[in-house]
Amino acid sequence: MRLCRDLLDQSSDLLLTAGADGDEPNPRRLVVVDARVNTLFGARIRAYLDAHQVTYQLCVLETDERAKTMASVFRVVSAMDEFGLSRRREPVLAVGGGVLTDVVGFAASMYRRSTPFVRVPTTLIGMVDAGIGSKTGVNFGRHKNRLGSYFPGAVTLIDPAFLAGLPARHLRNGLAEVLKMGLIRDRGLFRLLAAEGSRLVAERMQAEGSADGGAAALTVMRLAIDGMLQELQPNLWEQRLDRIVDYGHTFSPTMEMRALPELLHGEAVAVDMALSLVLAHRRGWLTDDELIAAREVLADLGLPTWHPVCRPEVLAEALADSVRHRDGRQLIPLTAGIGRARFVDDVTTAELTDALALLRPAAARTEGGAA
Amino acid sequence: MRLCRDLLDQSSDLLLTAGADGDEPNPRRLVVVDARVNTLFGARIRAYLDAHQVTYQLCVLETDERAKTMASVFRVVSAMDEFGLSRRREPVLAVGGGVLTDVVGFAASMYRRSTPFVRVPTTLIGMVDAGIGSKTGVNFGRHKNRLGSYFPGAVTLIDPAFLAGLPARHLRNGLAEVLKMGLIRDRGLFRLLAAEGSRLVAERMQAEGSADGGAAALTVMRLAIDGMLQELQPNLWEQRLDRIVDYGHTFSPTMEMRALPELLHGEAVAVDMALSLVLAHRRGWLTDDELIAAREVLADLGLPTWHPVCRPEVLAEALADSVRHRDGRQLIPLTAGIGRARFVDDVTTAELTDALALLRPAAARTEGGAA
Repeated sequence: MRLCRDLLDQSSDLLLTAGADGDEPNPRRLVVVDARVNTLFGARIRAYLDAHQVTYQLCVLETDERAKTMASVFRVVSAMDEFGLSRRREPVLAVGGGVLTDVVGFAASMYRRSTPFVRVPTTLIGMVDAGIGSKTGVNFGRHKNRLGSYFPGAVTLIDPAFLAGLPARHLRNGLAEVLKMGLIRDRGLFRLLAAEGSRLVAERMQAEGSADGGAAALTVMRLAIDGMLQELQPNLWEQRLDRIVDYGHTFSPTMEMRALPELLHGEAVAVDMALSLVLAHRRGWLTDDELIAAREVLADLGLPTWHPVCRPEVLAEALADSVRHRDGRQLIPLTAGIGRARFVDDVTTAELTDALALLRPAAARTEGGAA
Repeated sequence: MRLCRDLLDQSSDLLLTAGADGDEPNPRRLVVVDARVNTLFGARIRAYLDAHQVTYQLCVLETDERAKTMASVFRVVSAMDEFGLSRRREPVLAVGGGVLTDVVGFAASMYRRSTPFVRVPTTLIGMVDAGIGSKTGVNFGRHKNRLGSYFPGAVTLIDPAFLAGLPARHLRNGLAEVLKMGLIRDRGLFRLLAAEGSRLVAERMQAEGSADGGAAALTVMRLAIDGMLQELQPNLWEQRLDRIVDYGHTFSPTMEMRALPELLHGEAVAVDMALSLVLAHRRGWLTDDELIAAREVLADLGLPTWHPVCRPEVLAEALADSVRHRDGRQLIPLTAGIGRARFVDDVTTAELTDALALLRPAAARTEGGAA
């Protein structure tokens, strides 16, 4: 993982050399790029590759969550075949959001049983979440990320300049995963989001024109990424299933798939976090003030805390699937004070139903307040 | 890998405990079984699982090379979902030939990013080749094993009793891969095949009713498996692409896919080996006697040494794809004397065309002699 600037500046050879071994006399690259990113940055990407005399092909993918499918993986695989990709020395460049880097990563992991790829996330969620660690995946049937692999990219190049063109909603979407890190392991990050969150959205985390020259944005980015790395690296293949980064990811995978395309990933995680905060509060693990503070940050970031899909039977089904995913245990991470997590194994449907009853009007109030 | 006997005997707990951790109060298993194997052994498999009070589901797959596709992988994935498979503690049992174990292994590697599986090969090629090592895969487009993963099963249980029901052609198919090991690394194994090959086919490598009580069959099986293990284990992820076990696998993947369904995998490998023997002979790396001896074994095993698909342009295309697979080099293993291999990087289309011209009538003579 490398935080960088001016990735598409022609004087930089970072993108050219990423994932490749030393000198290549005739570099060839297949570039898979998100359609929106192609509109905004396609000309600069082409100019960069031309300037470095790369033989390349651009494969443009429409990527929202509904396109996170094996059909998209097959499109990438076919592009690899058409390009005549060499097996291990011509890294595929994946330029886009988390859906795109997950799809291309899965394709790369299976093409000739593995071919290198480089992640260039262009969304905040791609930079702080999907682009970190080793997971690739697609949805299958009604199930989120049901198929995938552990296959770390050769490198992830993170250039926050891509965020300048990101719609506000997608920036909020990424901040939901940042908030998760604050809630479970980093009280300082939580406080920073509480103080600066809405400004970060407005400024798109850019330095230019920022009130503090981008200092808060950079700190948030670094804390979020470092936190993820520290959590993921000892457990890259998920041999341990008690993962605090699963906070907000117990109920949300099923909710997200049911609500498709209404909830973005981070939004579904936000709804799950809102529920998890209530569960923790009712167990006495969050004070009233902590609960209120956490809800205020969610509201301030413009994240949803409720969705019509939040029915007890849907949550029960979501929990049952998470239990299968965690080998027969619930292992639900909850906040034990803000900035710390602990696991529970005994959440009941009655408890969920109670929490929902409490959450529903509260969420409605919060949304009213944020509007 | 474990060579065993009486795997389906109800007094054995080998199949029950394979890939599972210790005591399971209520064992559950998804069993994916080849249609032909189900006809022959399905009742015994069910009786075994019932006797051990396993909650199970049998998923029956038609598996020939044409079914080695993502569609088959999806059938297995859907069966996993329907069964409600736990993520890491309910190993899927894959009972069938190499196609089936490759398909189930690929499905297992991607389901929730990995779920354990156990290989129970029921064909000789499954026992000595596909069941060893860590490769899974399916064909995609016109390309052999274009998609796959490195994902070793929890264990491979090899019970030669399954071979009793195998058609002779499929036994010969497996012996082609055994012959490969003899030609490139084990002169003793080559001699054993030369002396006993046709008897092994007739007796289906069973001890009962065998002229030598199954001694030669057991030795052949052990030498072939041990040889594969020694070659594969230092290079399970194929970080090195100079693999002598690729002998017979430079031209055959393309030939096999073009000739589908006429050539079984081992048969395509046999044709490739026949060609490779001529290439080695013409370079002075095999004596006339060695070439004749090797051809006699191919004939004796009833393996093809020619197919109408062997046209220069097909071989050139096959070589080009192998070069992409070997990162820009030919790395063609050839015999340097029987029982030793060396790599070449300079085979020309003219050389291939010459070899084919020589091979065609020779192959016709050999086939006539074997009939």
